[in-house]
Amino acid sequence: MSAAILPRLTQACAPLTQEVVALNEFGQRSRVSIPAERDLTVYVDKRELVTLMTLGAHPEWLVLGYLLNQRLITSVDDIESITVDWDVGAASVKTRHGIDRIEERTSKRVVTTGCGQGSVFGHLMDEVDSIRLPAEAVLRQSQLYGILNAIRLKESTYKSAGSVHACALFRGDALQLFVEDVGRHNAVDTIAGWMALQQRPAVERVDHVFYTTGRLTSEMVIKSAQMGVAVVVSRSGITQMGLDVAQRVGLCAIGRATNKRFLCYSHDQRLVLDAVPHAGAALHATAETEHSLA
Amino acid sequence: MSAAILPRLTQACAPLTQEVVALNEFGQRSRVSIPAERDLTVYVDKRELVTLMTLGAHPEWLVLGYLLNQRLITSVDDIESITVDWDVGAASVKTRHGIDRIEERTSKRVVTTGCGQGSVFGHLMDEVDSIRLPAEAVLRQSQLYGILNAIRLKESTYKSAGSVHACALFRGDALQLFVEDVGRHNAVDTIAGWMALQQRPAVERVDHVFYTTGRLTSEMVIKSAQMGVAVVVSRSGITQMGLDVAQRVGLCAIGRATNKRFLCYSHDQRLVLDAVPHAGAALHATAETEHSLA
Repeated sequence: MSAAILPRLTQACAPLTQEVVALNEFGQRSRVSIPAERDLTVYVDKRELVTLMTLGAHPEWLVLGYLLNQRLITSVDDIESITVDWDVGAASVKTRHGIDRIEERTSKRVVTTGCGQGSVFGHLMDEVDSIRLPAEAVLRQSQLYGILNAIRLKESTYKSAGSVHACALFRGDALQLFVEDVGRHNAVDTIAGWMALQQRPAVERVDHVFYTTGRLTSEMVIKSAQMGVAVVVSRSGITQMGLDVAQRVGLCAIGRATNKRFLCYSHDQRLVLDAVPHAGAALHATAETEHSLA
Repeated sequence: MSAAILPRLTQACAPLTQEVVALNEFGQRSRVSIPAERDLTVYVDKRELVTLMTLGAHPEWLVLGYLLNQRLITSVDDIESITVDWDVGAASVKTRHGIDRIEERTSKRVVTTGCGQGSVFGHLMDEVDSIRLPAEAVLRQSQLYGILNAIRLKESTYKSAGSVHACALFRGDALQLFVEDVGRHNAVDTIAGWMALQQRPAVERVDHVFYTTGRLTSEMVIKSAQMGVAVVVSRSGITQMGLDVAQRVGLCAIGRATNKRFLCYSHDQRLVLDAVPHAGAALHATAETEHSLA
């Protein structure tokens, strides 16, 4: 990848939570935090493309990742600037050379099971078979436990306000980026946008692991594969199409991952069992795992 | 409402779960159930409209509710038939008189935070201010506890396979319909479709309560209001826009509802506190509520 001129991005910030008064079961009123949910209308070269509902933590990375994951652009080089203005709820994208056949390419609508970003323009699935994930990417069990522990310790909007999904990108077990959003597809798109800005070659992505609190649906698996990340970990489960796609692209999909527990649904040859717990150790966690909402 | 001729619907069934082999943390392979996720392409009068990703339990009600909630049709009377064929993943909708300006009305795209059905065609929010929910709709705390208990006892795909959202419609504390789907907006659309088929006048919907495992986002609140249901209960929390809409339409929004606990975020004048627990009773449940994924 060439040392391209990176796009100019604003750093628009907005409060992630809001305090409201709620009545509890004792009839008492108390102040609770709830997550923000903002509409951000994306304009590409002054043409309205889509409105994203977002928490608003990193809107510029979100828009960049959205365009990349929808395959409307192929590289950050295509973008000159992204300007977000919360006062008007708008993200103005300026491309370097326009987007070819944008009308046609955004006309096919698929409403997916993805939490937060249901609308994937139609040709995404067509691309799956062209994706080749690095054969040498592996996940050690000890590294997985490090990742789960890092997630547990993370301060977050979820902990204060609930009702958001989190995604994170790890390199080994070192946290690179942690993103929350009201929609989990916004969270993964934000990570994709950030990753693209790092301009890391594929060979440096071989030790990357993508974590999500959300379910491993087909869309989530495809997005991870598009980022070149061969290992995905989720607190939740996997759907049938998520599994189908993971198997097709050679992605190691791990779900139900909390504490020491997990289930590896696909390509378990990428998994190195170097930290098998004692037989009785995981029993304690059963009830919690079963209650985690997917 | 007149005793209209109801649309002809197929009753296409497909297995809701699939058994797969997964590797656990001890290096053991075991059989686990995962939810199905099917693509269902909706054709209206032979014109392709949208592809829904669904568990597939009640595809005809889903399609009907989708068309209603998107305001592409105003009544079941508009539909002559819905024919679902899983072999080709298609739902063929035949209308009685066509859908006016369908191209124009489906062109504005909003990608929402909704889990499962992100794409609401753009004019939904415009309608919010025209909705009037019945002033006399109330929820008794004892009724709420009955609802939460009924949900707890419900056998479900979630319990066997996880990774699905559930919605339910109650009349008083009597369960009318329980629907699971990989996307929670599919679940609420399915309920909307079923409700429309019952042809109950608004006055009979005054004692209806809508339950969802998912978050109370703006889209979820709007859909409940569109069904004429003034009380919504969620295991999860509420987002800022969900709360805004609930306040505007006069909807009683209750979140974090598990065991004896809940938080009423809006219009608590609809809530009758007839079963306040003893002061120490709810402490036990704190950790569980805090861990429930929104």
